[in-house]
Amino acid sequence: MTERLVVVGADAAGMSAASQARRMRGPDDLQIVAFERSTHTSYAACGIPYWVSGDVSGPEALVARSPEQHRSRGIDLRMSTEVVAVDVAAGTVTARDLATGAEETLAYDHLVLATGASPLRPPVPGIDAVGVYGVQTLDDGAALLAGLEALGEGPRRALIIGGGYIGIEMAEAMCSRGLEVTVITMGEEPMDTLDPDMGRLVHEAMAAMGIDVRTATAIEAIETDAAGRAVGARAGGELFSADLVVLGTGVRPNTALAAAAGLPLGQYGGLVTDRRMRVQGYANVWAGGDCVEVLDLVSSRRVAIALGTHANKHGQVIGTNVGGGYASFPGVVRTAISKVCDLEIARTGLREADAVAAGFEPVSVRVESSTRAGYYPGAQPLTVKMIAERRTGRLLGVQIVGREAAAKRIDAAAVALWNRMTVEEMTALDLGYAPPFSPVWDPVLIAARKAVEAVNRTR
Amino acid sequence: MTERLVVVGADAAGMSAASQARRMRGPDDLQIVAFERSTHTSYAACGIPYWVSGDVSGPEALVARSPEQHRSRGIDLRMSTEVVAVDVAAGTVTARDLATGAEETLAYDHLVLATGASPLRPPVPGIDAVGVYGVQTLDDGAALLAGLEALGEGPRRALIIGGGYIGIEMAEAMCSRGLEVTVITMGEEPMDTLDPDMGRLVHEAMAAMGIDVRTATAIEAIETDAAGRAVGARAGGELFSADLVVLGTGVRPNTALAAAAGLPLGQYGGLVTDRRMRVQGYANVWAGGDCVEVLDLVSSRRVAIALGTHANKHGQVIGTNVGGGYASFPGVVRTAISKVCDLEIARTGLREADAVAAGFEPVSVRVESSTRAGYYPGAQPLTVKMIAERRTGRLLGVQIVGREAAAKRIDAAAVALWNRMTVEEMTALDLGYAPPFSPVWDPVLIAARKAVEAVNRTR
Repeated sequence: MTERLVVVGADAAGMSAASQARRMRGPDDLQIVAFERSTHTSYAACGIPYWVSGDVSGPEALVARSPEQHRSRGIDLRMSTEVVAVDVAAGTVTARDLATGAEETLAYDHLVLATGASPLRPPVPGIDAVGVYGVQTLDDGAALLAGLEALGEGPRRALIIGGGYIGIEMAEAMCSRGLEVTVITMGEEPMDTLDPDMGRLVHEAMAAMGIDVRTATAIEAIETDAAGRAVGARAGGELFSADLVVLGTGVRPNTALAAAAGLPLGQYGGLVTDRRMRVQGYANVWAGGDCVEVLDLVSSRRVAIALGTHANKHGQVIGTNVGGGYASFPGVVRTAISKVCDLEIARTGLREADAVAAGFEPVSVRVESSTRAGYYPGAQPLTVKMIAERRTGRLLGVQIVGREAAAKRIDAAAVALWNRMTVEEMTALDLGYAPPFSPVWDPVLIAARKAVEAVNRTR
Repeated sequence: MTERLVVVGADAAGMSAASQARRMRGPDDLQIVAFERSTHTSYAACGIPYWVSGDVSGPEALVARSPEQHRSRGIDLRMSTEVVAVDVAAGTVTARDLATGAEETLAYDHLVLATGASPLRPPVPGIDAVGVYGVQTLDDGAALLAGLEALGEGPRRALIIGGGYIGIEMAEAMCSRGLEVTVITMGEEPMDTLDPDMGRLVHEAMAAMGIDVRTATAIEAIETDAAGRAVGARAGGELFSADLVVLGTGVRPNTALAAAAGLPLGQYGGLVTDRRMRVQGYANVWAGGDCVEVLDLVSSRRVAIALGTHANKHGQVIGTNVGGGYASFPGVVRTAISKVCDLEIARTGLREADAVAAGFEPVSVRVESSTRAGYYPGAQPLTVKMIAERRTGRLLGVQIVGREAAAKRIDAAAVALWNRMTVEEMTALDLGYAPPFSPVWDPVLIAARKAVEAVNRTR
């Protein structure tokens, strides 16, 4: 008998799940219906800042697979159709065609919730004014580009609210477009996914790029002109004038639908699943992508991390399980990399504050090294911070700030964390060495050696 | 009572050992005497190709620490002095001043053998002719540069014997200097530290750079002119004319002294040590650097690997142990990276042939991916080969050939190998993702997914 898989949300997690299930089970065995409330499928949201900057030519480049491509693979895809209710007892979803308002109730054998995350909008006056832009969807990107074009040439000023990944990437994009840029963040430093001492390095580098970074500053209101158009913001008691305002204030799991259905949500509002990405307590309901919480393997706590690479893995795991195979997603170590112009920023594991919150006593070291052998042309400075547990020396986290091939160096540390290595074990790691690529002591190994000494001093 | 540490060979391993022992024990506690037969200490031999290419300004840039710097740290350094005999029963070394011929016998409490490796010179007629250059020592580099200068401007042709690391790096150097370059290798493909299918990619890229690569070709003789100067070579029955000939035909552990002293040597002629780098069976004799064999953690066999990064680690471990601490060198996973012009080459673990020789049944996959998200400007192709054990899926090796930040991606695989991960475990690894640095599925993870499928097909 043909089973039916219903997918809610046709972006990375949802369509990876659908595609993988389809690879494993033919149309006679598994009917797949996917609902998407927007007009786009499977697009790279993380590429939007680079489209806005002009590095990527157009939105179509960001679409990994179009609705037509999905349909041609035997997926019944309903665009501009929003699932408005899930009845897990009855095993049905109710979907509304956003153009006509018509509703349909459909039974499922397997349900995949991949509803993503929604941007957090500071609840201040004027936040919904014309000229205030998000960068979450392709439509957001198009609106921002249209707004930019309407400004014409000449001196223009952008105000970025938020100093995290989106904030710094949009700061780069606005610099690329020739705007003067101010970044306002509530954090002690920008990039508060790093410890403040490492965030300070980002701050200094951004200042040297001509970006005005205001820290520990809360947005109070968007200022508008008589036509209701944003002309700046009031923050920290100061008035910042701007031709456009960009919001990069984070996201939260989009789980209103799941909550209404009574499904279990965690501390950060994300769906709680088991290792196979099955919603806890529901045999045939799966969830993945930005709408779930995942296990942080270092702190052993659940966290919400909106990242395309995780969403794709979740979809792959769900699709394999729905397809009759076995796959699991053990968790994350919170690896993340980014850049602002030529400054690369990477982190994995816990920050000092995270470590303390998880009950570890952290020991930290910071080393200055170089991206290549010191004598090799183009060698650039690189700062590595390493955090270990007191006494045991277990690696807890690594942060890297530097230029040119700095960011992906975090991967070696991420794999070490995954394997619960101690910093002493790490000192012997056989990492790649040649003068164009690394000093003879790899920066991560130098940090590990210093961390061993620091751990020994605090035993 | 003051003990005496005698170090034979004052390059990376020897002087790292001396420096670390000195950090741990003061001059009243430990006298340190180091013998060096050349006129240089602690230099980056791996930087010589980049000096010859002109990327590095002069030999002084390659010297990490001069004799004077070592002496100022309380190390009694005897330059141009060769240790000609070791008597392990008596606990003495006999050293000869190469200028005067005077010999001295000195007792030691701890002995460190760090005698390095010697280049293999093909035993063919003319190999010692003027115009045939090695690239092992700073003096070799200076001789080659003088030879280059003597050629003047205009069309010149270099013949490189050997297609391994030194061979390709010298091919790059000679290209940078504007010479026409031919590389002759006995291997099926250049870079025979890779499997032939990956070496083929290197071959094609080198050909596209205008480098003439002749594979499966043995050198038969160096051709000389009436003055005894090299004017080319005969190889594979063909005559190759050249203005200079560079030897990059590998090295072997330099252990004649150790052999004469009756110390244990392994299959590759390297000294055999325990995990603490103590020569097996000798309580107070230590050895490190290119003159030792080390444990390959994947094959569980001893191998000889001449690499500065290992030599530095060995020295650090020996110095810590001689200093009264505890440190060990568990082994290697045979990570190595290099480049020829903008083509980056990386490997870790076993090649297919190594895996078979070690008794594994290997399963291999090869994937084409990209260095950045496909839509991000500057994305470059990248080929990853992954080798796993049949049935268990244990990771056995990874090879990467590509451009721009391709090489250091091997580190994630090297740490996975170190931790004996299976390819299935690897598919979940939390590696850094952002569009400028990686596709949403990291190339190493794509390879791991394919490897899981391949392993499953052969169960």
